[in-house]
Amino acid sequence: MKFHLIIIGNELLNGKIQDLNTHFLARFLHKQNFELESVQIIKDEQEQFNQCLDRLNAPGNFVFTTGGLGPTKDDKTKYFLAEYFKKDVTFNHEAYDITLNHYKRGGREYNKDKIDYHNLPLEFTPLKNPIGYAPCIYYKENDFHIVCCPGVPSEFESLIQEVIAPNYFPKHDIFTKHIIFKTWKIPESRIFFKLIPNLWEELSKFGEVSSLPHKVGVDVGVKLTDPSLENLKEKEKNLTQYITESPLNEYIWHIGPESVEEVIIELAKEKNLTIGFSESCTGGLCASRITDISGSSSVFWGSVVSYANEVKNKSLNVSLETLRNHGAVSTQTALEMAIGAREHLAVDIAVSTTGIAGPGGGSPEKPVGTVGIGVSSIKGDSSELFQFRGGRKNLKRTFSDAALFQLLDVLRTWD
Amino acid sequence: MKFHLIIIGNELLNGKIQDLNTHFLARFLHKQNFELESVQIIKDEQEQFNQCLDRLNAPGNFVFTTGGLGPTKDDKTKYFLAEYFKKDVTFNHEAYDITLNHYKRGGREYNKDKIDYHNLPLEFTPLKNPIGYAPCIYYKENDFHIVCCPGVPSEFESLIQEVIAPNYFPKHDIFTKHIIFKTWKIPESRIFFKLIPNLWEELSKFGEVSSLPHKVGVDVGVKLTDPSLENLKEKEKNLTQYITESPLNEYIWHIGPESVEEVIIELAKEKNLTIGFSESCTGGLCASRITDISGSSSVFWGSVVSYANEVKNKSLNVSLETLRNHGAVSTQTALEMAIGAREHLAVDIAVSTTGIAGPGGGSPEKPVGTVGIGVSSIKGDSSELFQFRGGRKNLKRTFSDAALFQLLDVLRTWD
Repeated sequence: MKFHLIIIGNELLNGKIQDLNTHFLARFLHKQNFELESVQIIKDEQEQFNQCLDRLNAPGNFVFTTGGLGPTKDDKTKYFLAEYFKKDVTFNHEAYDITLNHYKRGGREYNKDKIDYHNLPLEFTPLKNPIGYAPCIYYKENDFHIVCCPGVPSEFESLIQEVIAPNYFPKHDIFTKHIIFKTWKIPESRIFFKLIPNLWEELSKFGEVSSLPHKVGVDVGVKLTDPSLENLKEKEKNLTQYITESPLNEYIWHIGPESVEEVIIELAKEKNLTIGFSESCTGGLCASRITDISGSSSVFWGSVVSYANEVKNKSLNVSLETLRNHGAVSTQTALEMAIGAREHLAVDIAVSTTGIAGPGGGSPEKPVGTVGIGVSSIKGDSSELFQFRGGRKNLKRTFSDAALFQLLDVLRTWD
Repeated sequence: MKFHLIIIGNELLNGKIQDLNTHFLARFLHKQNFELESVQIIKDEQEQFNQCLDRLNAPGNFVFTTGGLGPTKDDKTKYFLAEYFKKDVTFNHEAYDITLNHYKRGGREYNKDKIDYHNLPLEFTPLKNPIGYAPCIYYKENDFHIVCCPGVPSEFESLIQEVIAPNYFPKHDIFTKHIIFKTWKIPESRIFFKLIPNLWEELSKFGEVSSLPHKVGVDVGVKLTDPSLENLKEKEKNLTQYITESPLNEYIWHIGPESVEEVIIELAKEKNLTIGFSESCTGGLCASRITDISGSSSVFWGSVVSYANEVKNKSLNVSLETLRNHGAVSTQTALEMAIGAREHLAVDIAVSTTGIAGPGGGSPEKPVGTVGIGVSSIKGDSSELFQFRGGRKNLKRTFSDAALFQLLDVLRTWD
């Protein structure tokens, strides 16, 4: 079974909103050993929709659509489908009952003269929507499956998890697993052309190889497949042994799909350490990334987002002299911010960020992209200046990466 | 000219990374009165690539690809293109010079025996990459344009802004503008079926209508097009007049594409007010969203991310009695957090969040999705409990929306 996603929505193509469903669905399928084959974002026009379906309408394909289920005139998904499959749209009793229940749950009354959630193309199945008002829709023909989901991320996620996966996902005939070796402190070209020149070929014996460079580090991946779950596990064991006995091993900071945030929390739990931040240029992003992870509250105490120098001074005890003599973006300020955060938050390890995310605020000596990162713990205090490039949001992200990887470094070597 | 994006990358389809380039490109094109027609995310396989190009290879199409420009064996974009257009890949002097310059800039040496950035399909043009090492690629045939960009967001953004837009974007033959009326405190169905029952028809006289509901509010949009920029402005004026004289006007919090963050900063600047947060469940996300906006530093002082109760007590003066008697998620704690943040950060308006983002931590009385929002200013202090649904990241986002819209409300009515 091959999975595809069609996102119907002008609002994504003109940049009004950002698509969040692809990433959720890709991760969700991957965790269940399935794979997303393709994604298309199209306008809500019959012609583009038909072109998509012409390509995907084949036995063995399972298509999700998002968007176009609501009550207004730009919500046309079911009419696109009716037109494509040549089905009349008529009153559907089950859809009507489901809709009434949704409205009852929301404490509102359903106005069936204005809204047509109760009408469906013939032979289509209405599905409960765990959160929203509009029923979702399922249709199957010659082992081609299509399910129309709401575009609102919370509704989409609940529908997939609570309704589609348990009831409509196929059984496995082949198992897939991506093994990811997350490396750092070595560039991509050095891994493959100097450290282990035949690495790509060696890894290819196990499965499909990939290499994904980030701002900090390179993820080397191998996709394993096997009809037997047992053989798959054996392959995984052999691959991991090959890598951990190779020279790449000393550059690996994690084996697995987990993010740096997840690894930080695991390590802090394991070593019984509490963590916190003081953030200027990242503006809360370090803390927000850590708190995206469930369970972070057991090790993460807090962050002082000190955008104004007044807050750096008052909350973090950064001296006015330091700010005056060295500026807010300096190793000195970063150091005092980290020390101040460790005290203020009463944590074992505190990491600070102070930098220039732009587009304004740069100077020849300290251009946009300059960031100071400080670290403070019982083992000692230190700070360093780094230099990156990019737009504002991008730089904020990169600065937070730099801070999180500094924290990771401290946690890994803590004994 | 119609713009299309092809994203080549298995890592997006298996959920290893999230696509950030679509949103950037969509917004960038939209600001220049262009439109993105479609987006496709495909695996790095020749067959999928050919299928995409078969659809898009037509005069008047301008295609961006991202990904597959690097040095490893899964970087195949130029070979896909060579195969598709039946061109030999050969040594290209200009690509070689550009590559040498990129390496010189990065302080590294180019190893032309291992890396083949200097080879290009015949008749293809190499482009400078403002940040990375690999040259980008441009090709044109019968008024079909394709440009191969790097997938790393900072490289992609710089390339589009600094190289592609100034040199390769077409002149306008038709101008497009989306006018967005951002409303709140009224559900979508009430707008179109009760408040102004013929609203959709009336707006359709101006252009293509859209309606996009969010957790907080509904964006009603109209796409205006005209071959003359002057006529377009006239249409915009008439449309805005129609709406501001209609009953919808009292539900509008902003006219334009700007986000709630941007409007908050503009209003705070205008009214000369400083703002800050104390955040528990949102974990820094409110602050991070505000600091995503350039210029936020003139009004945003900081945020106290107080994940642990110890921090709520020590930094924000939330009394231990309140925490014990009412719990961290309560109107009482939210209120004290807001008051504490206003004092601690010395700002005019402080907003607090304390809630349960899940998946754990819920109870029958306070289920996952419960959030307390507090507001403190010289005009008074208040707090309220809200209830939402969704997964953890989603709820964090919704909680931060709730907090930002509370802040917006205070700012709008401030005199």
